[in-house]
Amino acid sequence: MNVRTPDPYPGWLSDEDLYEARQRLPILYVEAIPVRLDPLGYVNEVGLLYTADSTAQFTRTFVSGRVMYRETIRAALVRHMEKDLGPLAMPQLPASPVPFTVAEYFPSPSETGLTDDRQHAVALAYIIPVRGECSPRQDALELTWLSPEDALSPGVQDEFAGGRGNLIRQALAHVGWCR
Amino acid sequence: MNVRTPDPYPGWLSDEDLYEARQRLPILYVEAIPVRLDPLGYVNEVGLLYTADSTAQFTRTFVSGRVMYRETIRAALVRHMEKDLGPLAMPQLPASPVPFTVAEYFPSPSETGLTDDRQHAVALAYIIPVRGECSPRQDALELTWLSPEDALSPGVQDEFAGGRGNLIRQALAHVGWCR
Amino acid sequence: MNVRTPDPYPGWLSDEDLYEARQRLPILYVEAIPVRLDPLGYVNEVGLLYTADSTAQFTRTFVSGRVMYRETIRAALVRHMEKDLGPLAMPQLPASPVPFTVAEYFPSPSETGLTDDRQHAVALAYIIPVRGECSPRQDALELTWLSPEDALSPGVQDEFAGGRGNLIRQALAHVGWCR
Amino acid sequence: MNVRTPDPYPGWLSDEDLYEARQRLPILYVEAIPVRLDPLGYVNEVGLLYTADSTAQFTRTFVSGRVMYRETIRAALVRHMEKDLGPLAMPQLPASPVPFTVAEYFPSPSETGLTDDRQHAVALAYIIPVRGECSPRQDALELTWLSPEDALSPGVQDEFAGGRGNLIRQALAHVGWCR
Repeated sequence: MNVRTPDPYPGWLSDEDLYEARQRLPILYVEAIPVRLDPLGYVNEVGLLYTADSTAQFTRTFVSGRVMYRETIRAALVRHMEKDLGPLAMPQLPASPVPFTVAEYFPSPSETGLTDDRQHAVALAYIIPVRGECSPRQDALELTWLSPEDALSPGVQDEFAGGRGNLIRQALAHVGWCR
Repeated sequence: MNVRTPDPYPGWLSDEDLYEARQRLPILYVEAIPVRLDPLGYVNEVGLLYTADSTAQFTRTFVSGRVMYRETIRAALVRHMEKDLGPLAMPQLPASPVPFTVAEYFPSPSETGLTDDRQHAVALAYIIPVRGECSPRQDALELTWLSPEDALSPGVQDEFAGGRGNLIRQALAHVGWCR
Repeated sequence: MNVRTPDPYPGWLSDEDLYEARQRLPILYVEAIPVRLDPLGYVNEVGLLYTADSTAQFTRTFVSGRVMYRETIRAALVRHMEKDLGPLAMPQLPASPVPFTVAEYFPSPSETGLTDDRQHAVALAYIIPVRGECSPRQDALELTWLSPEDALSPGVQDEFAGGRGNLIRQALAHVGWCR
Repeated sequence: MNVRTPDPYPGWLSDEDLYEARQRLPILYVEAIPVRLDPLGYVNEVGLLYTADSTAQFTRTFVSGRVMYRETIRAALVRHMEKDLGPLAMPQLPASPVPFTVAEYFPSPSETGLTDDRQHAVALAYIIPVRGECSPRQDALELTWLSPEDALSPGVQDEFAGGRGNLIRQALAHVGWCR
């Protein structure tokens, strides 16, 4: 962070500066669990991304990304939804900024049960209904729509890393889903 | 409530029985504040009904009605939205059944500040985005879309009865609206 | 509901009238899941009641009861907490009236997954921290404090009736508990 | 952020590094509005701090501060409550990590209506009941307990800076307070 001359990409850190910041500050994230709703608002399907991490291990995940400097949470949600689900997903952003949960990821095990070995990240997590067509782009290999039952099945839960599967459980509990 | 033979309209009480029940039990309601959202989820407009009550006084109100026997809250919301906004409103029911507030109306003044001289009513209140065209039908004389500023203006607030204007304030506070 | 003379117990229905009302109207309930919190607010223990139902079957349950006519939700919560946990429990009622979930019980299986063969009941469900000493009185045979892990274990979950075990899952998901 | 040797105060940035980070990343805050509750959970009083800012202007504010690296949100809340209200305040941390609102402060005017000329800050805002004795320490000149009416009065609202008075409105709306 020794760049004091005008920065052509304000809000974006160089890789090195981001590495440094991640050792010193909690980094703010948004996370979105895309869902398909029926006309009464019941969750029919949960959209999960199937991706390869840096070690070529396949893991399940959901829409997730940093909030940039001077970016609103809503703008960050739209940007990451579009990055991961494509421009035609037609996400329905919530009227309220209150997340269904706040997920705290730490670089080592903690009382929150969530880990991220790169950083201390605090994610505001939202359930986002999508009405359009989804075509994952950057990073994600595949988007799968699963029933709530399947999303909670041990087989799928085991494919999440860092305790993230728990967020699916919390999201489905929040919508009153009853197994 | 002395009808013990099979009832052609289960879930609906006769006028007399409803009158009696209203003297003896809290009656469960749903209330919906229709909103127009921009693509980022910010509330652009609030839909208020302008109606004449039994004394021919004009009052502002919002979508509101009883939950019937064996009816889910979601079904009641859809039914009352359709009754008050027409069949083409395209309401987007929330994924979560948690209301933004619980409004308690009493037949005489109480600590809740909300009154309904017919009954003790407990209303689960929701903010419901609508995307389609609205054409109020039964009861309502007029549907008006107001900006948040206008909906909170003293002139409009004075047109609500029984403390209901406060629900608009609570709804707009819930979505983070900042005057 | 044919009593039109002044009623010595307003807000209380005769057994017969209550039976009738339960065939015709959704009945409003409050439900409370008592918890012990550590100083940081993490849930250490969940308080479950162990009770015998009308068929002498033992079931797990939590604090639950009707809202009376002209009674506020907060007053109903305090009354039922005191009835089930005794007068020294020192429950800490929430500042907000918004429940963590709304539980809809139907007399026959439905999309909500919750059943109550006596009635259609709609319960506003709250997590209530208690700081004092609990001594269950009426109805309940026993109050047990369980760790979140134990409350979610299959053995304990099987002891709930009507799908109520799911509310424990929802409550623990709401507080961010991560297994 | 050019310190790569072991750091004696991990989680704390040097003044210079903090200045830099504030130009490049959203900074995560917690904010707490202390309240006194009556036994039913109704808000009797709101605790506001009266403080002098760097220009010796007196402003109203509430408990607010950064979340440190590797610090949980709950630990940050406890730390800032103790710093601003003293060690005997006996704050009751909420069971749920979900804030009543997420406040986004930007260095220049934006759609959120909240400004902080030092930085882009994102604050998770909580209502925290306190039961003990409060004696403000660091920074704050005075703690005042106001009725909800007084906290919302124009005179008091004008003493907040950067749009923060709106958070009091949102907090009181969240608890169902009805003027």
